Amino acid sequence: MEEKFDSNPGDVIEDVVRELCRDSIYHSSDINHFAEMPSIDKLNEVMYTLRGVLFPGYYGDSTFTSKTLHHRIGASIDRVYHLLSEQILRGFCFECINTDKDMKECQEKAEETALGLIKKLPYISKMLSTDVQAAYRGDPAAKSTGETIFCYPSIRALVNYRVAHELYKLEVPLIPRILTEMAHSETGIDIHPGADIGEYFFMDHGTGIVIGETCIIGRNVRVYQGVTLGAKSFPLDKDGNPVKGIPRHPIVEDDVIIYSGATIVGRVRIGKGSVIGGNVWITKDVPPGSRIVQYRTRVQQFMFGEGI
Amino acid sequence: MEEKFDSNPGDVIEDVVRELCRDSIYHSSDINHFAEMPSIDKLNEVMYTLRGVLFPGYYGDSTFTSKTLHHRIGASIDRVYHLLSEQILRGFCFECINTDKDMKECQEKAEETALGLIKKLPYISKMLSTDVQAAYRGDPAAKSTGETIFCYPSIRALVNYRVAHELYKLEVPLIPRILTEMAHSETGIDIHPGADIGEYFFMDHGTGIVIGETCIIGRNVRVYQGVTLGAKSFPLDKDGNPVKGIPRHPIVEDDVIIYSGATIVGRVRIGKGSVIGGNVWITKDVPPGSRIVQYRTRVQQFMFGEGI
Amino acid sequence: MEEKFDSNPGDVIEDVVRELCRDSIYHSSDINHFAEMPSIDKLNEVMYTLRGVLFPGYYGDSTFTSKTLHHRIGASIDRVYHLLSEQILRGFCFECINTDKDMKECQEKAEETALGLIKKLPYISKMLSTDVQAAYRGDPAAKSTGETIFCYPSIRALVNYRVAHELYKLEVPLIPRILTEMAHSETGIDIHPGADIGEYFFMDHGTGIVIGETCIIGRNVRVYQGVTLGAKSFPLDKDGNPVKGIPRHPIVEDDVIIYSGATIVGRVRIGKGSVIGGNVWITKDVPPGSRIVQYRTRVQQFMFGEGI
Amino acid sequence: MEEKFDSNPGDVIEDVVRELCRDSIYHSSDINHFAEMPSIDKLNEVMYTLRGVLFPGYYGDSTFTSKTLHHRIGASIDRVYHLLSEQILRGFCFECINTDKDMKECQEKAEETALGLIKKLPYISKMLSTDVQAAYRGDPAAKSTGETIFCYPSIRALVNYRVAHELYKLEVPLIPRILTEMAHSETGIDIHPGADIGEYFFMDHGTGIVIGETCIIGRNVRVYQGVTLGAKSFPLDKDGNPVKGIPRHPIVEDDVIIYSGATIVGRVRIGKGSVIGGNVWITKDVPPGSRIVQYRTRVQQFMFGEGI
Amino acid sequence: MEEKFDSNPGDVIEDVVRELCRDSIYHSSDINHFAEMPSIDKLNEVMYTLRGVLFPGYYGDSTFTSKTLHHRIGASIDRVYHLLSEQILRGFCFECINTDKDMKECQEKAEETALGLIKKLPYISKMLSTDVQAAYRGDPAAKSTGETIFCYPSIRALVNYRVAHELYKLEVPLIPRILTEMAHSETGIDIHPGADIGEYFFMDHGTGIVIGETCIIGRNVRVYQGVTLGAKSFPLDKDGNPVKGIPRHPIVEDDVIIYSGATIVGRVRIGKGSVIGGNVWITKDVPPGSRIVQYRTRVQQFMFGEGI
Amino acid sequence: MEEKFDSNPGDVIEDVVRELCRDSIYHSSDINHFAEMPSIDKLNEVMYTLRGVLFPGYYGDSTFTSKTLHHRIGASIDRVYHLLSEQILRGFCFECINTDKDMKECQEKAEETALGLIKKLPYISKMLSTDVQAAYRGDPAAKSTGETIFCYPSIRALVNYRVAHELYKLEVPLIPRILTEMAHSETGIDIHPGADIGEYFFMDHGTGIVIGETCIIGRNVRVYQGVTLGAKSFPLDKDGNPVKGIPRHPIVEDDVIIYSGATIVGRVRIGKGSVIGGNVWITKDVPPGSRIVQYRTRVQQFMFGEGI
Repeated sequence: MEEKFDSNPGDVIEDVVRELCRDSIYHSSDINHFAEMPSIDKLNEVMYTLRGVLFPGYYGDSTFTSKTLHHRIGASIDRVYHLLSEQILRGFCFECINTDKDMKECQEKAEETALGLIKKLPYISKMLSTDVQAAYRGDPAAKSTGETIFCYPSIRALVNYRVAHELYKLEVPLIPRILTEMAHSETGIDIHPGADIGEYFFMDHGTGIVIGETCIIGRNVRVYQGVTLGAKSFPLDKDGNPVKGIPRHPIVEDDVIIYSGATIVGRVRIGKGSVIGGNVWITKDVPPGSRIVQYRTRVQQFMFGEGI
Repeated sequence: MEEKFDSNPGDVIEDVVRELCRDSIYHSSDINHFAEMPSIDKLNEVMYTLRGVLFPGYYGDSTFTSKTLHHRIGASIDRVYHLLSEQILRGFCFECINTDKDMKECQEKAEETALGLIKKLPYISKMLSTDVQAAYRGDPAAKSTGETIFCYPSIRALVNYRVAHELYKLEVPLIPRILTEMAHSETGIDIHPGADIGEYFFMDHGTGIVIGETCIIGRNVRVYQGVTLGAKSFPLDKDGNPVKGIPRHPIVEDDVIIYSGATIVGRVRIGKGSVIGGNVWITKDVPPGSRIVQYRTRVQQFMFGEGI
Repeated sequence: MEEKFDSNPGDVIEDVVRELCRDSIYHSSDINHFAEMPSIDKLNEVMYTLRGVLFPGYYGDSTFTSKTLHHRIGASIDRVYHLLSEQILRGFCFECINTDKDMKECQEKAEETALGLIKKLPYISKMLSTDVQAAYRGDPAAKSTGETIFCYPSIRALVNYRVAHELYKLEVPLIPRILTEMAHSETGIDIHPGADIGEYFFMDHGTGIVIGETCIIGRNVRVYQGVTLGAKSFPLDKDGNPVKGIPRHPIVEDDVIIYSGATIVGRVRIGKGSVIGGNVWITKDVPPGSRIVQYRTRVQQFMFGEGI
Repeated sequence: MEEKFDSNPGDVIEDVVRELCRDSIYHSSDINHFAEMPSIDKLNEVMYTLRGVLFPGYYGDSTFTSKTLHHRIGASIDRVYHLLSEQILRGFCFECINTDKDMKECQEKAEETALGLIKKLPYISKMLSTDVQAAYRGDPAAKSTGETIFCYPSIRALVNYRVAHELYKLEVPLIPRILTEMAHSETGIDIHPGADIGEYFFMDHGTGIVIGETCIIGRNVRVYQGVTLGAKSFPLDKDGNPVKGIPRHPIVEDDVIIYSGATIVGRVRIGKGSVIGGNVWITKDVPPGSRIVQYRTRVQQFMFGEGI
Repeated sequence: MEEKFDSNPGDVIEDVVRELCRDSIYHSSDINHFAEMPSIDKLNEVMYTLRGVLFPGYYGDSTFTSKTLHHRIGASIDRVYHLLSEQILRGFCFECINTDKDMKECQEKAEETALGLIKKLPYISKMLSTDVQAAYRGDPAAKSTGETIFCYPSIRALVNYRVAHELYKLEVPLIPRILTEMAHSETGIDIHPGADIGEYFFMDHGTGIVIGETCIIGRNVRVYQGVTLGAKSFPLDKDGNPVKGIPRHPIVEDDVIIYSGATIVGRVRIGKGSVIGGNVWITKDVPPGSRIVQYRTRVQQFMFGEGI
Repeated sequence: MEEKFDSNPGDVIEDVVRELCRDSIYHSSDINHFAEMPSIDKLNEVMYTLRGVLFPGYYGDSTFTSKTLHHRIGASIDRVYHLLSEQILRGFCFECINTDKDMKECQEKAEETALGLIKKLPYISKMLSTDVQAAYRGDPAAKSTGETIFCYPSIRALVNYRVAHELYKLEVPLIPRILTEMAHSETGIDIHPGADIGEYFFMDHGTGIVIGETCIIGRNVRVYQGVTLGAKSFPLDKDGNPVKGIPRHPIVEDDVIIYSGATIVGRVRIGKGSVIGGNVWITKDVPPGSRIVQYRTRVQQFMFGEGI
């Protein structure tokens, strides 16, 4: 391709600009988007502020006293309300770009939706306080619940997930996914905002955990690094695109433990109280109270000096 | 070691400085480097700007119109040209620190090389637009191609890789690796810039994927989290250092799917259209059209109350 | 829950603030903390500055000369001493919040402890220079030791770990864990600061590696992505909380290689010079010089068109 | 007032909040304003970007070439158009807060007005290039026209004034005044955006210069530090408020020089080519070609040791 | 002096360091100070936050509603309380560096003092609202009181002064002066925090105004740019240092107007309702109701072509 | 002018870009400059760092101890050396843009010159310590020398001036002027870097002081706000441009005091120990020991109610 350019930088840049702007590349596909995109920076500020609301003293300015706590929380929620309204609106715009919806109506719906999330904060707070207990109880290395709030990837990922999940239920487009991907990037834990996860949830270490869109997870479940709760396969429509929205991920009942690297795929049910061993690959239902382990890993042992 | 220090902070610091500066620690090895290092901040700016060029409207300022798009792109490319020339020069300096190469010659070569990357942008743009299609088609949870551009780790990692790979082919030292490591840190996806990857490539979830330096991957390949396309072992030279540059990673032909946690190591060939099941460990060629799954995972099941 | 709110934003926010501030949510548990928390920003500055001390020329300002190197290092250590004293003090406060310890005593102990870390810098520097050698020798894709210092997640994670481990031995609460979690977030490598790791350690690719609190790792060990050196299970005390501090993670002797995805759990001993194959699951001692591989992965192969 | 507070910080703060929020303080006056205010940061970005457009190479990124200059300028103007539209809209909102104007109409008017300013840029550029010539010719200390562009408070203040004046003529509220006050803060030169100033204008040193709202200044005028072109007095309306908009500041014809500290007040006319000496106080018309100096400053001289 | 250095940069720097560190330069005078200095950044944050408290909607986030205003104000004051306590403490330390005062006592006094300032906020708010009225009434160019709050140097300087003055009365060292110097730098208006200024005060344009430490200014006073209310001369003690704290600046009674460039020096009294003309130099008392103007400025007029 | 544009934003912007890029506007004059300009940000960092070197403990990090002071100063000077070399080089390039000077030679000269400034730091430090003494002795409001270092515009302006003056003597183009204009913007004090000012210099309040390029000021001189030491007039060459470099500003001998608003213009000599009263206008030599005051300001006094 280089042959058609000569080597003067100004000319080369002109040629590249022209080529990049040509219809064939840009305008014949839907990969371009000329409306204002959600702001990652603002969404980071939303989550930063919410962490200060959900765990006052751990995040945000920690120098307040109990007498002034309500002002800190009130001002924070007020700020979140305005920031989030704007971002939810952008989420709506992202989806309905070519329609002729009334802007003002969208704006009001965005504000209502942001308020809907605000209303859920006490509930989210309660859920997270159970997650903190679960982290403390689930890890012998944890010295205090405070340490798990401040340091543990599990809590970091669950704050984003629990907020994103409420927004998902409020049918906000795009924003919930951005929030969980922000946590994915920070922690290596990829929870789809559509997943439904009960209280007292703990993910130890966390890196590589994948929890799919239609997963349902009960209360008091513990999951280790590298666990996949995924889809087995998915039907395509007549255009070859995957059919969206079909339940295709596991149901995990209460009190289940899933050890590192286990892979559970498809709409299977892991019965209450089961323990799934490390690296196990499961594609069928498991009855309550099961202990599933790989049938004795057979290893072969050579003397020193032989090649692997 | 502490005994030799007394406890006055000033004296302790003096002692530590002296010890750290002593020849035995610093000057007898090559771990020190006194030339100006590539700037991670500037390379981040390069990638940020390029994302705005490759996906206008999704990244960078999104308030332009089609009439002014060419100025946005032109100004961005101009900026990338200058930033990248400087960083490529630093890459050259990093390698040739002790030689007596002419600085001016290096500078001109750096500018030529940066221009070489600019010339490749239309090609990179075309490749990425196929990757976006692949992500949309490959994930039932994707609501639009736009969502994959804006949120998916797969696209984030591929933008960095496809730019880094062109710089790698232009024989730029160090910089390509920095670019892919930046994506590795953000996404958990580790693609060596030397790997050769065809169009319509998609990595779902992505965390823990490793694609080695001499991999060759065809078109329309899909790979899940935790997949390794690695080397099996490598020969050492007479000093015990690994021999560099030998083809040692897999060849994956068109239309292959590799499920989560599969490990394929060595210079093996995965035939066109094959499907590799999760957690499979492969060290030999697989013929076209194969379906490879672990031979029935044997699991052992206990009643509730038994230990694992 | 929404029913009790009407829809005026101001009123909703008031209601939510009241609910979030109610005793039942906040004050009955220990998840709140009103003392000044450690500053992630300041700890990032500590690590940034220490990287410049440990690898001068690679990190920090790289324009000094050998004549002025000692001032750069001296000023950096001086800065670290003051920053770290403050953060260690906050770590102490985090733990002893409800006691009546003398503040001044805490402050002096924090300064002493920071100085204790400073004293260890030459030792840490020596350890890291062996890790750099190990990275260069262990990866055929590495072009120079400099590249491993500047780009490799292994070195990034080990700098944080080796500093955190010394602080852990000095009995600093919280801070060591924050430092290793910072590296975990950046690299996907999760090393507990309590682990004891010998010289010449290398982790290739690294994503998903977990090394537990009571691990002991010898010299010249190489570990690949996705390896877990974890606990098998752990006893609970009479309140159902895990008993803290019991040795429960593997001992890995000198010259061992552990390939990607291998899982070694419990207080087992991997003998000197052993090679552990990929995806292996080990819960028992392995004698020196062993070669452990999965007993021939059995794969099943279908013709094209069959479902997996 | 302190007596009514007790000394617990939380209680004091509550009391102060209550008092500050009481109607008597806030709601009975018009000093509060609950709409979104213009952003000083964004207006700084507008001026920063415009300086790069008006003096390419001196401000903004200076590494472009003549071939790519048009993209830099195009992208900059595009950015200014969007930023300024938003700020002009906020200016409109600031004024019409209590009316029921259609928001969409305001938005369109804001965009039109921003475009109106864009159209004036070539004219502003021409005016400023005469100001640069005037600065170079007017100051023996100036080494080049470039130095005056880059360093001289006169040019800095005139860029803001000339932009603000066009916005003033386009009847934008508030924003023009903010722009000239930004320059006032930086340079000590206070030019009201309503003033009408011809080409080739130069203010040496500049600190303390005041040029009032209804001033008319011809071409090729030079003014020194501390000069006031002010109002003498102004009529009040029946409520005691000053009557707005009456011509009340001087007219200065072409080729006039006004030396430092001179004060010219009221709607007087300084005739073409006049020279006004330092510290002179003028309240009457001055015919063309005059040389006005203070009638011999009489100074009294004492011997050493006497008090002043 | 250069002769004693040779020209190797490293050696030169060593020599300069040694010379700068020598006792003769540093340790024999009191110009060095090794305690933690007040932070300009933090004091800027204090003033930024206080502006949002004193003029809610104009400064700080402007998107709240009246229902949530009290939280914004409460959270802001809480923040100011903590920030200011710390800075006041540093002010105390600055002064008492060599004494053996109890640190804890200082800290408590700093917190009490910060609380003292908080208690004064409603009073400061009332005073400033009169200043805003005065600015609107005093300037025909002002379109609204809002414009004066948002744009006028007079208000900007008075916010800092009125806060600084209360801190001055609370006997805080150093900090009040820093606050007024911050405003001096931004506006060119230099008000000493010790000055005592009544309500409805307005300074038009403002640049160059100087109001000395022991000034007393009544209510409804208007002052123009370049006015000095200064000291005439001051007695020295036996060491040649000025005697501190003697009343030495003017008293300006209610309803006085002082035009630009007027200089009033010494402990003189300007009687109620007087008007002082521009550039007048006054060193004696002026009775109430006076109109003071320079006795007909005599100007000399030449024909065109004559030199000044 | 607007008529020729239609109203589509894209088209308007294109037209404006074209017009701004046309030769007639840009290329026919010397107001454009395509080389890399000095960086105000970097020069601010230079001055910030130098303030920490010249007043250790007052500026920069203040937590060092005397034992580590030399490292702080050494690292700071090292940093200044590199930053300043780069900026001096840009100053050279600014001037010699069209010549064919060898780049490498320029670079070496820039480094030598930066080292020249470094050598002068002990001298600058001594001069400034006398200025600090002068400020403390000259202002009854000053509580300590520390307060003058930390708060006084006089010291802030003199630090920049004394550094700029040494660079001026080293014949660095542009940079010295930028440094003094930075101080001018912050303090309202405009000292040309060419002026020659002796030790123990103090400017009280400072706003509006102008000290011209060829001024010579002795030791122990005190100057108040609004004082001009300027040029009276200046000869033009045959093209109408001012002849550069002629001595045209006052000589002020030792121990002189000049009160506020005094204007002294032309190459006049103010004799040792003279006191120049406020607002005096002087254009002739003043013998040593003089006391110059305005001959009794004649003021006219009206009764209340008369107009001015």
